[in-house]
Amino acid sequence: MSAPRLHPEFFIRLFLGENAMLGPGKAALLEGIARTGSISAAGRELGMSYKRAWMLVEALNGMFREPLVESARGGAGGGGASLTDTGRQVLALYRGIEAAAAGASADRLSALRGLLPDSSA
Amino acid sequence: MSAPRLHPEFFIRLFLGENAMLGPGKAALLEGIARTGSISAAGRELGMSYKRAWMLVEALNGMFREPLVESARGGAGGGGASLTDTGRQVLALYRGIEAAAAGASADRLSALRGLLPDSSA
Repeated sequence: MSAPRLHPEFFIRLFLGENAMLGPGKAALLEGIARTGSISAAGRELGMSYKRAWMLVEALNGMFREPLVESARGGAGGGGASLTDTGRQVLALYRGIEAAAAGASADRLSALRGLLPDSSA
Repeated sequence: MSAPRLHPEFFIRLFLGENAMLGPGKAALLEGIARTGSISAAGRELGMSYKRAWMLVEALNGMFREPLVESARGGAGGGGASLTDTGRQVLALYRGIEAAAAGASADRLSALRGLLPDSSA
């Protein structure tokens, strides 16, 4: 999945437990749901099928003690979706981990870039 | 690929440029080559086919300004392999990034773990 990343050089996936993985795709989906109020709209923005977006939401909702996404299905317009408090916390923690990791690694990342061929710099 | 990770909660892949990705699999392979002196032995330890291990070494050798792995093919025993100075530098920088990222994220990681169901803790 090619989710946009805030720190494009860093792809961080967290292994929190059995079947509890959290990475850039799920984080971007949570962010999109918070912004659009819709699971399918958020998935569409990321180029995910409706089915995949729902599958990821179900995985996220089963992963923590509380669900991360609340959705109201049915009715005209198909209801909406939003993040729960836990959803907002998890997203903020993941984004904080990305930022802290990128910050702590900046010098070593430049050193690595300095070893690339000139054409890739 | 299920490479052993020094920081098992963290999976970090670096996107250093076009076709220049560095993650736990390649890092583990470099480490195995340094230790065993053999690309195929290192790959075997990681459950990689001979072909895949060579493919990754070729990718690594084309990724930076200098090759990361030197190998002597042929002769009885099939020659050996070792890391170049650049190979040792790249591996140390990647491991340093993993450690720095894990260190900088420890508090947020515990906070995330605190949101898991008790059974996953």
